Amino acid sequence: MSGKRPVVIDLRFARESVVSALRSAFPDRPVIDMGDAANAERDLTDAEFAVVWKPDPALFRRATGLRAIFSGGAGVDHILSAYELPDLPIVRFVDRSLTDRMSEWVIWQCLHHLRNGIAYASQQRERVWHEIAEQPEARDVTVGVMGLGVLGADAVRKLKVMGFDVIGWSRRAKSIEGLETFDAANLEAFLGRTDILVGLLPLTDDTRGIYDRALYSRLRRTGPLGGPIFLNAGRGGSQNETELIACLADGTLKAASLDVFEKEPLDPESPLWSMPNVIVTPHAAAASDVRALFRHVEAQIARLESGLPLEFVVDRVSGY
Amino acid sequence: MSGKRPVVIDLRFARESVVSALRSAFPDRPVIDMGDAANAERDLTDAEFAVVWKPDPALFRRATGLRAIFSGGAGVDHILSAYELPDLPIVRFVDRSLTDRMSEWVIWQCLHHLRNGIAYASQQRERVWHEIAEQPEARDVTVGVMGLGVLGADAVRKLKVMGFDVIGWSRRAKSIEGLETFDAANLEAFLGRTDILVGLLPLTDDTRGIYDRALYSRLRRTGPLGGPIFLNAGRGGSQNETELIACLADGTLKAASLDVFEKEPLDPESPLWSMPNVIVTPHAAAASDVRALFRHVEAQIARLESGLPLEFVVDRVSGY
Ligand SMILES: NC(=O)c1ccc[n+]([C@@H]2O[C@H](COP(=O)([O-])OP(=O)(O)OC[C@H]3O[C@@H](n4cnc5c(N)ncnc54)[C@H](OP(=O)(O)O)[C@@H]3O)[C@@H](O)[C@H]2O)c1
Ligand SMILES: NC(=O)c1ccc[n+]([C@@H]2O[C@H](COP(=O)([O-])OP(=O)(O)OC[C@H]3O[C@@H](n4cnc5c(N)ncnc54)[C@H](OP(=O)(O)O)[C@@H]3O)[C@@H](O)[C@H]2O)c1
Repeated sequence: MSGKRPVVIDLRFARESVVSALRSAFPDRPVIDMGDAANAERDLTDAEFAVVWKPDPALFRRATGLRAIFSGGAGVDHILSAYELPDLPIVRFVDRSLTDRMSEWVIWQCLHHLRNGIAYASQQRERVWHEIAEQPEARDVTVGVMGLGVLGADAVRKLKVMGFDVIGWSRRAKSIEGLETFDAANLEAFLGRTDILVGLLPLTDDTRGIYDRALYSRLRRTGPLGGPIFLNAGRGGSQNETELIACLADGTLKAASLDVFEKEPLDPESPLWSMPNVIVTPHAAAASDVRALFRHVEAQIARLESGLPLEFVVDRVSGY
Repeated sequence: MSGKRPVVIDLRFARESVVSALRSAFPDRPVIDMGDAANAERDLTDAEFAVVWKPDPALFRRATGLRAIFSGGAGVDHILSAYELPDLPIVRFVDRSLTDRMSEWVIWQCLHHLRNGIAYASQQRERVWHEIAEQPEARDVTVGVMGLGVLGADAVRKLKVMGFDVIGWSRRAKSIEGLETFDAANLEAFLGRTDILVGLLPLTDDTRGIYDRALYSRLRRTGPLGGPIFLNAGRGGSQNETELIACLADGTLKAASLDVFEKEPLDPESPLWSMPNVIVTPHAAAASDVRALFRHVEAQIARLESGLPLEFVVDRVSGY
């Protein structure tokens, strides 16, 4: 064990996935697994790193010797918004598999709406053979992606390969080859061009509740799908769910695919479950692969130990 | 009209789409639209070209002066199998929009199965919030495409961009960059590697009934999806539907997405409509855009008139 200080793990993921991934992780360093009841009272002052997903709030008071905190997911709102955090680097999770999975979800849902998946499923239930006329193709439809970070940039590239007309929006002006982009100040112009809006924003003070009636109403109403469609796989805290439900009911929005919700799990009483124009997935768009997470943490620790700076460190001011 | 001989149109497509596309098509040439009752008895001996989809069998006896026959779709089984055809070049429909649409359908359905679309839709109906464990990513899943023609080659390329492991099968050995391919003699090896089988074959004497129990049973049973999945958007005549239904019921196949059927429209009594593991679309994967069809016919006629050979001429011996 070479006298290295421990890494403390507090991941509220499916327990077996953590246990199984820990078997081969951190071979040269002690591991304190907070999922193991035996560690409930353990002194944590010797821990050097923490890997966390919705951890016990007491963790950061007990682990006073930390050098860095690793988020178990791409988002860090789960710790930034709810905890008194020590002034330490917070590293978010960036990984090829996470990115690929998110793009799978985005392309899947964009195609599902483009290709009338909801209507064809309903016709199938009724045993109706009817080809829906006026099937637009991807190039006729503009997908507007809000958030052009690691996930948004990959989704944009794959949406383009599938033929969609794609535009993007981010806080700071951005130049991505072959993509028309809009910065924060040009939200209105961006929305007015968008037929399918894809939310891939982090949850911050600036993005909380950003998807509201005012925003939905500004989406393009004259596109080939017969009304704007909203996809959200960023964070539920960014959507005003009461207004979302009202807009889906009154036709301001034609349809939605939602992976994230203001409160998760989604309340069994929520009207979203049974709205005919809504697809619900249970925050499953891009689950962290725990093995990949530990590989990423190991790689970042190795960087630190060889004198290189950490990557993917969150900006505490902007909140992502 | 410059004294040109007429083009005769006999397209059993949605009537309005033909009428509207004809308004701007063939500006320098008379058009005989067989969908117009006034033409029912018209002498057709002066017609030089025919554009047909499931035409009146009498057409080819009446139009004795044809130089070429244009199929209204990518497939030509609708005329080759059912008619006494004159010995003329038959040109099939090849078009970017048709190809793009087919790839949309293929990627959509592959992602739908990869991402547990059927299970999540059923959980949504039950208001169950449950993330399905062990979500494989695209790279863990091998998609085997049968038919590497215009449509298959495009689907393969886009499946790879989405991350799938892709292999392909065609009659003649083929080399496509970055793709492992198998020829007719190596069907068994191809099937044994395939988790999701995508059928994009034309219907010919050789491919009639090719998708049968013997074939389904040879697909890989140990893949990450828990059983092989069958997609068909080629022609229904290639699938033995009785055996397909039995294999979907007894677990030989885990699931299927079917756009084509032995008999279309699909019989309202067919068990396929209500099988929980089957997605039915009504031969809508890649409808011909009639405007694009007429542009393609005009371009081919122009080639002929400037002394160039026709493209996309069907080989009457192999049947596609
Ligand atoms: N549903 C799931 O399963 C799942 C899985 C993983 C991640 N996620 C969510 O996806 C989010 C995005 O991940 P990522 O890795 O792509 O993050 P990222 O690389 O940090 O990118 C964030 C993007 O959002 C933009 N942005 C942030 N605040 C903004 C604001 N106020 N106005 C306009 N644009 C703003 C950023 O703009 P700049 O480029 O100008 O900085 C950047 O383009 C995560 O934070 C997480 O919440 C969800
Ligand atoms: N569902 C829909 O909406 C829809 C729309 C359009 C088309 N389609 C169907 O899709 C089919 C394919 O279209 P395409 O444009 O890609 O045709 P294509 O360019 O002619 O390609 C046909 C492919 O199938 C292969 N093939 C033919 N017979 C075979 C056999 N006996 N064994 C092995 N491989 C064989 C060919 O092999 P080689 O490369 O060795 O010649 C070729 O790779 C059409 O014929 C049509 O039936 C369906």
